[in-house]
Parts: sequence; structure tokens; C-alpha cells
Amino acid sequence: MTVVRVEQKVLNENQRIALDLRRRFEENDILCLNFISAPGSGKTTLLESTLAVFRPEEKVAVLTGDLQTENDARRIARYGFPVQQIVTGGVCHLDGKMILRALEPWPLENIDILFIENVGNLVCPSSYDLGEQAKIVLLSVTEGEDKPLKYPSIFHKAALLILTKVDLLPYVPFDIEAAKANARQVNPAIEILEVSCATGKGMDEWRAWLDERRGNRRPIAAAINTGVVADKQH
Amino acid sequence: MTVVRVEQKVLNENQRIALDLRRRFEENDILCLNFISAPGSGKTTLLESTLAVFRPEEKVAVLTGDLQTENDARRIARYGFPVQQIVTGGVCHLDGKMILRALEPWPLENIDILFIENVGNLVCPSSYDLGEQAKIVLLSVTEGEDKPLKYPSIFHKAALLILTKVDLLPYVPFDIEAAKANARQVNPAIEILEVSCATGKGMDEWRAWLDERRGNRRPIAAAINTGVVADKQH
Repeated sequence: MTVVRVEQKVLNENQRIALDLRRRFEENDILCLNFISAPGSGKTTLLESTLAVFRPEEKVAVLTGDLQTENDARRIARYGFPVQQIVTGGVCHLDGKMILRALEPWPLENIDILFIENVGNLVCPSSYDLGEQAKIVLLSVTEGEDKPLKYPSIFHKAALLILTKVDLLPYVPFDIEAAKANARQVNPAIEILEVSCATGKGMDEWRAWLDERRGNRRPIAAAINTGVVADKQH
Repeated sequence: MTVVRVEQKVLNENQRIALDLRRRFEENDILCLNFISAPGSGKTTLLESTLAVFRPEEKVAVLTGDLQTENDARRIARYGFPVQQIVTGGVCHLDGKMILRALEPWPLENIDILFIENVGNLVCPSSYDLGEQAKIVLLSVTEGEDKPLKYPSIFHKAALLILTKVDLLPYVPFDIEAAKANARQVNPAIEILEVSCATGKGMDEWRAWLDERRGNRRPIAAAINTGVVADKQH
């Protein structure tokens, strides 16, 4: 009985913080996206490819979560936009309190898009609302097409599935149509993109998706490049 | 304060069950191995390749955990050895109680090797002792060489790291020596094998590791084949 009561309380606290975060994001017209995937599915690389084509004056910021190390923040900082690493110290997910604390030093009126890269974990992060407008789940083609059925919670809650590393399709036994069908079985409304950051495939569609979510049709980058990750400095 | 007390109690209960499991495995001379990795690193495929070369009279059994679906048990059952799926219903790890319950119908004196395939998750399963003789962590070369530093707990606790899908090395930016150095930075004593179930590379070394852990030098299979996964029926 005690266990149930405590769990209930913790969930409610996160929910309360998430509601507050969502209200603040809406007031400041911020598009907040929460990226969730298994370790190594390519969240950081996708963010790098995305930031590489944003103009320096764009108001983009990134929070990136990991159990340990500041590696991801260092990779992302090369693109010249504000970034903060959230080191969870072993905790398997980000929660609302961590986001609230990380946002303290940033004036929210200076942010148009906030990317949150969650801890690499296809299970636990799906249970923690961070006030985001949408969850985005990444699944790399090296992981197997049955994952939406095995880990249904995150595929059920995500607005968008990005199938990553599609350049590796010739070398792996991955049935991409089965993967899409499995995702739609769990979530008929899920949108799906196929992306390769190595070749740039699908990056235009991904940017179009972002533009639409921002509520305007203004292109994110003045010049759309191939989306290949480069050691670019703004 | 209440939170701390409850968590303490739960951990102690798992520890108590794990001690009991370990004692029973030792009494029955069972080698129990707990496989942990991110989703899609190749745990099920490695088990299939391993079972494919065991003789039908070998006393091998498999417990395989997933949030949902019995897919893995179906795949593994094709090799003719006892297998049980543990569907956690959303729980992000296996615990001692689940193992205890799953073992109930099996006479332990009929098992020499028990493989436990944990839920695909590089974080939470490392905290739950299942009474195993060793934890084995898998890391596929598509996931990035920094993972041992980002997810140190499981690399610290594992006796063996199996680098999987090494056939994909020509197509991915993975520095295998850096991956090994990172694993040894977290755990200087960790053993490391490189394996590809697609080509059979490293399967002889993996079987030699298993033989040594079994405490005898009797080869596991009468004829060692290439280790390629086949739709084999015993």
C-alpha cells in the first residue's frame, strides 16, 4: 500500500511540473520537442545535422541528457547554439524538475525551438512528461523491425517516428515496411520519416516537418544543404 | 524520507531472492548468465547462433524478457531447448522474483546452462541481481564507442563485453579500439570478444569462453559450425 502511495505522489509531482513547463513554453511561443530512443540510435547526430543548417541568428537551444559524461553537449556546442548537458548521475530518464532547473539561466523569450535529447533508453523516458509539444522516437534500421511491438509505450505516445541510418539498409536484415506497419499498429496516427545523416536522405522532409510544427512556412535555413554532419563553426 | 525507506526495502527483497537463486544455481551446478544490452544489439541473435551448435542432449534452458510480445521465445524455441518468455508488461528490467517464478516448472537438476536475456535496456537491468554467475553486456558497433563511458554501471558490473555486428564495421564510424579502451577505463578486468553472427566471426572464441566458465574443456558442440543463424530444428 505504501509503495503505491509514494509512486502516485512522484508521478503527480512530475505531472504538475510538466503542466507548468507546457504553459511557459506556450506563453513564450516555444516549440519543445523531446527526442527518445535506445542508446546509439542517432539522436545526437540528427541534432548535429539539424543545427548545421540553422542560421546563426535562429533562436534554438538544446538540453541533452546522459547518465554520465558531457560528450554530447561538447558535440552539439560546435554549432554555436546554447546547449546544456543534464548529467543524471545514473537516473534512467529526464524528468520535469531537471528541465526546470536547466532552463533557469535561459531567458525563455530568446528561444523559439527547444530540443531535448533524452537519456538513451526506449523504456523509462516515455513515462515522464517534460511539457514538450511532441515526443519524437528514433529507431535505427540496425535495431530490428519488431521494436514498436516490444516497446509499445513510446511508439504509442510519439507524434513522429524517425527511422535513422537508412544508408545501412543494404547491409542489415531490416524490413522497413514491417517496421512502419508495426509502429502504426501501436499508433495509427504516428507520422514516419526515413533519414540518413550520413547521406542527407530525408533531411528536407524532416526540416519541412519542423517548419510545419513551428506554425509557419518560413524555411529554417536560408540555403538548404545536404544535411551531412560537418565540423561547422558559426 | 518515506521514499528512501521503501526503495531500500525493495532492493533488499531482490537481493535476498538473488542470494537464494545463486545458492540454488550452485547446488545444481548451473552456469547462469545474464545478457544485458540496448534494444537491438543482438542478444536474441547471439543466443540463436549459440543454441544452433549445441547438441540436442545438452541441458540448456533460456529465459527471455521483454515488455511485450513473445517474439523472442518463438525465435529461440526453434532450436529445441526449453525456453520461457517473461513478459514484464512495461517493467524496464527483470528482477529476482520473475526468475524465481519462471523457474518453478523446471527441475533444476536438468539444467547445466541457463541463459537469461534481459529486457533491452542499458540502464535499469544492471541494478537487479538475478543470481547469475556473470553479467554479459553486448554493444553493437552501430551504437558508438562512447557508450561504456555514458552507461558505466553495466560495463562496470559485466564480466564480459561482446562487441556484436562487427561485419558492419566497414559501413559505420566506430572506433573499436576506443570502445575497448573506454570499457577498460570503467572496468579494467572486463573480458572482450568481437562477434558477428552474420559471418560467424568470433563464435569459436565465444564458445571457448562458455566452455571455460562451465569449468571443463569439453567442447559444447561435437562439430563446430560457422555459427551462422539457420532455421535449424533439433
